[in-house]
Amino acid sequence: MVPLKILKSIAQKNEKKILLIVLDGVGGIPFNYGKTELEMANTPNLDKFASISETGFHIPCSYGITPGSGPAHLGIFGYDPFSYTIGRGVLEALGIGVELEENELCARANFATIDKNGIVIDRRAGRISTEENKRICEILKENMGEIDGVKVSIYPGKEHRFVVVFKGEDLEEFLTDCDPQKEGKPIPEAKATAKSSERAARIVNSFLKRAIKVLSKEKKANAILMRGFSKIPPIPKMQDIFKLNPCAIATYPMYKGLAKLVGMEVLKTGDTLRDQIKTLKENYNKFDFFFFHYKKTDSKGEDGDFNGKVRAIEDFDQVLPEILSLNFSAVAITGDHSTPAKLKSHSWHPSPLAIHGEYVFPDDVNEFHERAFRKGSLGVIYSTDVLPILLALSGKLKKYGA
Amino acid sequence: MVPLKILKSIAQKNEKKILLIVLDGVGGIPFNYGKTELEMANTPNLDKFASISETGFHIPCSYGITPGSGPAHLGIFGYDPFSYTIGRGVLEALGIGVELEENELCARANFATIDKNGIVIDRRAGRISTEENKRICEILKENMGEIDGVKVSIYPGKEHRFVVVFKGEDLEEFLTDCDPQKEGKPIPEAKATAKSSERAARIVNSFLKRAIKVLSKEKKANAILMRGFSKIPPIPKMQDIFKLNPCAIATYPMYKGLAKLVGMEVLKTGDTLRDQIKTLKENYNKFDFFFFHYKKTDSKGEDGDFNGKVRAIEDFDQVLPEILSLNFSAVAITGDHSTPAKLKSHSWHPSPLAIHGEYVFPDDVNEFHERAFRKGSLGVIYSTDVLPILLALSGKLKKYGA
Repeated sequence: MVPLKILKSIAQKNEKKILLIVLDGVGGIPFNYGKTELEMANTPNLDKFASISETGFHIPCSYGITPGSGPAHLGIFGYDPFSYTIGRGVLEALGIGVELEENELCARANFATIDKNGIVIDRRAGRISTEENKRICEILKENMGEIDGVKVSIYPGKEHRFVVVFKGEDLEEFLTDCDPQKEGKPIPEAKATAKSSERAARIVNSFLKRAIKVLSKEKKANAILMRGFSKIPPIPKMQDIFKLNPCAIATYPMYKGLAKLVGMEVLKTGDTLRDQIKTLKENYNKFDFFFFHYKKTDSKGEDGDFNGKVRAIEDFDQVLPEILSLNFSAVAITGDHSTPAKLKSHSWHPSPLAIHGEYVFPDDVNEFHERAFRKGSLGVIYSTDVLPILLALSGKLKKYGA
Repeated sequence: MVPLKILKSIAQKNEKKILLIVLDGVGGIPFNYGKTELEMANTPNLDKFASISETGFHIPCSYGITPGSGPAHLGIFGYDPFSYTIGRGVLEALGIGVELEENELCARANFATIDKNGIVIDRRAGRISTEENKRICEILKENMGEIDGVKVSIYPGKEHRFVVVFKGEDLEEFLTDCDPQKEGKPIPEAKATAKSSERAARIVNSFLKRAIKVLSKEKKANAILMRGFSKIPPIPKMQDIFKLNPCAIATYPMYKGLAKLVGMEVLKTGDTLRDQIKTLKENYNKFDFFFFHYKKTDSKGEDGDFNGKVRAIEDFDQVLPEILSLNFSAVAITGDHSTPAKLKSHSWHPSPLAIHGEYVFPDDVNEFHERAFRKGSLGVIYSTDVLPILLALSGKLKKYGA
């Protein structure tokens, strides 16, 4: 990939508009009837798009690597996912919609059950219900307040999961987990692995003690575990590196959060594709880069619901012409990673990619699916190469060297 | 790409000969009749060459990056164009045929117009003619001589452009430009951005003052701007890394200069393809690596002259059999970058590449153009991978590891 400092030195602003459509987890492998979801789906509009595009695949991180949503999106946003990493705590917080600030340290947390000797006997507190979770989070909140000038915030997630955010100065993230990882052991205190985190360790451990005291009357959720202490990473903004004025049209908190991390303005939108298109149209004049995220393809893939994923693809195909009726100098349609229904999870398989623009040299591929794209002219590129191509097609990169 | 130190450790000398033919900017995208220039051209000899070659593309720097001639050639000469960079001043000097030495600091310069308060009112001195430029350069030369033991040389370019070369010890290149970049501002003095350049800053600034004094009676060109201060970069020579005895047969100063930077002996030749072939034949026994540069394909592409580029390709096709009648163990025919007539400029599109040699496994491609090469067996490689393949085909790389 091109070093960011070189991209920064040649990026230039102009009025042209780029559209990056991410059909989350859209790629698959043959499953029902020996076909992938994209092969099975009836997609006249995506096929038409393929016929005017260069097609191929991108590899989200590297061969054989199954990426989480964080690294997968960083890659297609143009950032090396091995150089820029997002802590587990931060990802969990983004995923439930917490808007983090720079002086906030956060952690993924579980409610857990300990015995009278403080030994963890259930790391998930019997998988308490989400409702129960909310009730207990309220108790924690009421009894917590500040610790040595640090404000502690609690955000319930699903079942036994929640997020803790410590807001204050000098709270660095170099901490070991307060989690024994297995049952039959006591909860370890956080240890600072760097001097700059010693204050954070004291605050976290004092919170841990207080929480166990406050929860002592709970039957199941009488303790907490914390891991993945992290802060929002210092990722240079797309405005600064690529000279873009970017926005995100996404319905799920995780993707909104990831978009915000790289500088995108996260637009308010509704839950449906129709809402997202309305938002795109209303904001068309205000931005020059649009990240359009469609979640359903990934959700159905994660469920192992092949037919559901096929329908999700067909639903998107229906609205594509309306999206493309707006004028973009470059459009990419791809996934962040693959989520084959056969695997019921993210996977390492290359993600199908089609790029259209005035200066694209279309190949002979006329169908939008993995088998067809294998004959595409883009071949297999890395996810970090996608954005430079879109910038080039839009005249947003000056010549490198003379 | 392979790190140079590894290539150096396995490169070995032998008597076999490599020919690298660069049809500058030969790659294109569909334009007239939906065809690229190579598709349109009638090229029986290039087609025959394709049929006995492996075909595909190389990416000059990286996806989406439009390279200047410097980085594009460094890549096909085997050097990472992001690690080895050539300053603007040096490239400008190479472009007008200045032969730089190691203790020379050079700058791109403009004649400009300032008002009586020293404010720049025209950064290009009304784009004075090249003749006028030569006259004023003579005046500068006559009145300049040495500054504190540093010899200052002036080389006129086209219109308002010229090159200044400062020859002396301790003249490092870490200097800010003497150019306000826009009109309505005074000319800034050069500032050293590293201690090692403080002497250079003093010399440059004293030259600037003297030049303005000398030019005070000129109506338009009464001042100078200087930018891109640079010295020839410390690029390891092809002799040292690749154990080659390389020469260049090129007609334009820029390419001769680039070839010299990496250690090639630049052969005297005439302006025509026929002259170049004569030079190739006469020197066939003296070298083991021949860089043969054909400029016309790029010039016509830059002019947006599709038919002219087609003819330039056909002209080369005519002489190819004569070139190939000499015996080479490996021949590559490619461009340094693409210059589609549709874009009238260098572009980021992959550059078509065909490689022939005794140990090549030819693919099924029998035509020499981008659409055909998309089915080629080389796929898309990086420019820095071209030279190692040529070395391998010539038995010039030992086994790596045991």
